[in-house]
Amino acid sequence: MAESWSFLDAFEPNFRPLVVIELAKGTKEETIKWFTKRIVDKKANGGAQLLVKPLVTESGDENIYLIGASHLRLLLGAETVGLVKECNDNSMRTFTYSSRKTFKDFADDNHNFLTMAECQYIIKHELENLRAKDEKMIPGYPQAKLYPGKSIVRRLLTSGILVQIFPLHDREELKKLRQSWYGRVKVGYQPLDEIRCYFGETIALYFGFLEYFTFALIPMAVIGIPYYVFAWEDYDKYVMFATFNLLWSTVILEVWKRICAIMTFRWGTLLMKRQFEEPRSGFHGVLGINPVTGREEPVYSSIKRQIRIYLVSLPFVCLCLYFSLYVMMIYFDLEQWALDYHEENESNLSNLMLFVPSIIYAVVIEIMNRIYRYAAEFLTSWENHRLESSYQNHLILKVLVFNFLNCFASLFYIAFVLFDMKLLRQSLATLLITSQILNQFAESLLPYWLQKRHKKRMKKRVCSLKTDTDLSLVEQVNLEKEMGTYFGTFDDYLELFLQFGYVSLFSCVYPLAAVFAVLNNITEIYSDALKMCRVYKRPFAEPTANIGVWQLAFETMSVISVVTNCILIGMSPQVNALFPDAKMDLILTVALVEHLLLAIKFIMAFVIPDKPRDIQIKLARLEFESLEALKQQ
Amino acid sequence: MAESWSFLDAFEPNFRPLVVIELAKGTKEETIKWFTKRIVDKKANGGAQLLVKPLVTESGDENIYLIGASHLRLLLGAETVGLVKECNDNSMRTFTYSSRKTFKDFADDNHNFLTMAECQYIIKHELENLRAKDEKMIPGYPQAKLYPGKSIVRRLLTSGILVQIFPLHDREELKKLRQSWYGRVKVGYQPLDEIRCYFGETIALYFGFLEYFTFALIPMAVIGIPYYVFAWEDYDKYVMFATFNLLWSTVILEVWKRICAIMTFRWGTLLMKRQFEEPRSGFHGVLGINPVTGREEPVYSSIKRQIRIYLVSLPFVCLCLYFSLYVMMIYFDLEQWALDYHEENESNLSNLMLFVPSIIYAVVIEIMNRIYRYAAEFLTSWENHRLESSYQNHLILKVLVFNFLNCFASLFYIAFVLFDMKLLRQSLATLLITSQILNQFAESLLPYWLQKRHKKRMKKRVCSLKTDTDLSLVEQVNLEKEMGTYFGTFDDYLELFLQFGYVSLFSCVYPLAAVFAVLNNITEIYSDALKMCRVYKRPFAEPTANIGVWQLAFETMSVISVVTNCILIGMSPQVNALFPDAKMDLILTVALVEHLLLAIKFIMAFVIPDKPRDIQIKLARLEFESLEALKQQ
Repeated sequence: MAESWSFLDAFEPNFRPLVVIELAKGTKEETIKWFTKRIVDKKANGGAQLLVKPLVTESGDENIYLIGASHLRLLLGAETVGLVKECNDNSMRTFTYSSRKTFKDFADDNHNFLTMAECQYIIKHELENLRAKDEKMIPGYPQAKLYPGKSIVRRLLTSGILVQIFPLHDREELKKLRQSWYGRVKVGYQPLDEIRCYFGETIALYFGFLEYFTFALIPMAVIGIPYYVFAWEDYDKYVMFATFNLLWSTVILEVWKRICAIMTFRWGTLLMKRQFEEPRSGFHGVLGINPVTGREEPVYSSIKRQIRIYLVSLPFVCLCLYFSLYVMMIYFDLEQWALDYHEENESNLSNLMLFVPSIIYAVVIEIMNRIYRYAAEFLTSWENHRLESSYQNHLILKVLVFNFLNCFASLFYIAFVLFDMKLLRQSLATLLITSQILNQFAESLLPYWLQKRHKKRMKKRVCSLKTDTDLSLVEQVNLEKEMGTYFGTFDDYLELFLQFGYVSLFSCVYPLAAVFAVLNNITEIYSDALKMCRVYKRPFAEPTANIGVWQLAFETMSVISVVTNCILIGMSPQVNALFPDAKMDLILTVALVEHLLLAIKFIMAFVIPDKPRDIQIKLARLEFESLEALKQQ
Repeated sequence: MAESWSFLDAFEPNFRPLVVIELAKGTKEETIKWFTKRIVDKKANGGAQLLVKPLVTESGDENIYLIGASHLRLLLGAETVGLVKECNDNSMRTFTYSSRKTFKDFADDNHNFLTMAECQYIIKHELENLRAKDEKMIPGYPQAKLYPGKSIVRRLLTSGILVQIFPLHDREELKKLRQSWYGRVKVGYQPLDEIRCYFGETIALYFGFLEYFTFALIPMAVIGIPYYVFAWEDYDKYVMFATFNLLWSTVILEVWKRICAIMTFRWGTLLMKRQFEEPRSGFHGVLGINPVTGREEPVYSSIKRQIRIYLVSLPFVCLCLYFSLYVMMIYFDLEQWALDYHEENESNLSNLMLFVPSIIYAVVIEIMNRIYRYAAEFLTSWENHRLESSYQNHLILKVLVFNFLNCFASLFYIAFVLFDMKLLRQSLATLLITSQILNQFAESLLPYWLQKRHKKRMKKRVCSLKTDTDLSLVEQVNLEKEMGTYFGTFDDYLELFLQFGYVSLFSCVYPLAAVFAVLNNITEIYSDALKMCRVYKRPFAEPTANIGVWQLAFETMSVISVVTNCILIGMSPQVNALFPDAKMDLILTVALVEHLLLAIKFIMAFVIPDKPRDIQIKLARLEFESLEALKQQ
């Protein structure tokens, strides 16, 4: 079976492997034959019309296959997925094969017209759209049922026959990217366009947001420094600082939308039509007719899902939140107890005891976070969402709320129940700095070190001392298939979201927070870049037009921060001194200012257009042209 | 010149007049010839390919022309404007002439496939899209300049040669509509689909909203009655009532979006693609290239417009608001002075004097409203918006803010500065009831009476005692051209908006407000219907998918009402009695409740889907089909 499976092979002598498929060891011959046949078969016969080559390893196993495609096939695929590319007249248009000559840099022999990430995305799309015809089950596995229209790859994945599909790294490209990204110490922008070409839009947008957010924090950091240095404690300075922060956080979130529109317009994803979403692989239900497509597929009643969401998930999440608050109260009791103990019998031991509650609490929070994450994933999966996007949104919402409470509940308690501003400042600093250090370590440096050790061992085993670029294809595939999988930008955004909370929620108490955030983000860019390039398997590119639900999350946080900051300012002794005998007037004034600030926030968000004028004009021109074209028909 | 101008006349023996054009008396022969030629000319020659007939009146004047169109021309026009119609398989699709056989009720000889309102809309669209070719000016009027692509009709209107264009009533249809709408006293829904067929979607949607809003107010009214009857004054009952109102007002606004989607889906306007908007007739600027269309047209810098908006209009509006508040303060001073005078020397005269300030204030407010309306129209027109829609939005915003302040400032002052709940209740009742009575009178009954008198005089002049349906065409046109013009739904929505304010802003003080609102709206439906059918010229139909900026206005009002109601409840003596020695706790509790309610409001608005599930599925199916069609190509 070492021959190539492609019937197009004759026309494409230089087979370029793009995607790796790993089947389970001992997969039946019959299954492999059927699957690879479907991959190379003509479109008309329900195949994907791609190229397949088995990878022969020294052990003689044949469970890894390399997938490629002819240049023509990729161009046709680009049309299918609806890629948007730049034309010769600098406008962005949906690529079609028939109009290919009008596109910039297109030439029949220019194989770089599509980026490698795009090619891999196309192949992934084609593989996932390989659909069962009249097969009732996967050949060789009678228990793995199929129905007409079911995605074969998804069925193979859920039944465990297919272990993984991943795109190959391009050693040359990666080296170049690493060089320009973090290879030399330099101050400047990241090569976002190159990142996008290599890793796709979702990841490039994350790094774009990270960079933008860091720059946006600099004014806050710069203004915050003198407060620390000169120990300014005048209330009017604090009011100014907090007001600036609040309006600034609105502005940066609105401006981000514009910058995001500029970037995704250049990348073509702003214009890309959303493809019809197929059910996610975990979705199950009674076989029925999908009312949208008219195709036969599992159907699950939306009412049942609503019941599961509102009667099970929602109470469960509330219970978890309550439990988390309960744990926090125990922590504060312990803390008080340790303090009392220390005061009564002062000794080295009692001094040490002071740290015990914090350590226990930190460990418990970490454990709770993990357990909750599993529970949230289980519940969201049990809710049985038809679409991956809806699954993701529900999962993000669940995790976000819990993490928000876990991170900030103790700070809220200290601020608004204990009224202890000094303790608040201390806790805020401790939480912010330790979480940042721990994150950087756990997220990038530790995996990097493990990965490096593993690689060394692997290299020793294959007895070669070649550099990365000299690795043979077999060695490269073997190395990469063992690398960890990057599960998307969720955790990275979550980290930024919590950081934004630390910076904005209590900004008037601890002006230095922004400084630490900026410092952290600068190293974060480097460690995240390292993670993407060195630690994880290359992820499939995912076209996207914006940061989605995270925009909403950040905006909600900035609304909450208006409320907290107003209360904090109202509680400060300096402001209280202004209203010596009229606490009521003080509270009313604070409430009034808060409502005014919120009103200004909403008006600003409404007035600042989401897209810059030139993008608006370009979009309008495209719409106008398509209307004109319709009239011409 | 009494012959018909249509070259298609031979094929269309039964000319059905749809639209009337009135030219200025004494318009030059040359101009008429050129204009009518353009109207009847073939599309290929830049004409509108419509039918024209002069209307010969007894005085022999020839300044009125009737416009019609062949059935085929109207069907082609329906395709041009992108009408969406129901197909035989009950799906909604954009009408195209080539696929005409697949549409429900289509037959080549069925001239009712398009409603008369749709035919008139098509003709209006075609007339407005008659564009200058190489004419440098309107023939016969060298001062009325033209440039290639300028809408001829708009130029004729601005230069005063064209007095008006309006669609003709259909006496038969109108009689039927009147009969089913308000002809007999009945309880039930309005014939919205018939209204839509006769007057178009914008007006039908207004009546749909009015009806929906009235029904939605009934629960509030029903719950409010016992409060009045039993004179309930317990605070917990008030809190319940206010809380119910607040959540209810959120729910009804969200549900309206769903109902609106159902209606406009059935009417096809939900799916209708927005046409490219041409500049409004008042727009002026230096001749340049429009960046969207690439056509030559007047161009006006957006920065200049922004400067005018933010540096002139905004300060002016703020000044007017300030002035309005100032007038209000004078009113309260006068009121106080009258009261003092009455107390000092009690007499009949002094008793009469008590009413003087209110009367003066009412008159002054009315005058201010009118002057401000003119100023707002002038300013918005001076801001030189390119699009009619953007002009309308800016005008609505300006008028809305001022009217809101004028109507509610005195109530706010009484409630939150004077703390006089009794006076608040009194003022609220007086304002609500008098404004409703005045509105109904000024808006419909007065014009109806004037119109009726005018009609009688007209009929006497033509010396006929025929009933409406027997009127000759000449008589009908002469009658209708003198009727008032309906300037859109703005004032009707404004009235509803202010009513919503009276009902929701102070709902916990005056539970009867909803009762009066319901009673008013029931008669409002009848008087507005009368107005549409009897008083005004028939308006052109205007396809629309929603109530636009009014949805936002109503939602903003319901947010403001959360704040006011919370404060009112917090100020009530019963609640104050609950916190005898802790005013601070009271205020904090109120603030907490307010924030909770606002949070619940936003979450509810987020959770309730804007479109019902079956509409979502139908829209998704259409999108899926168009994606599939693209793939097939």
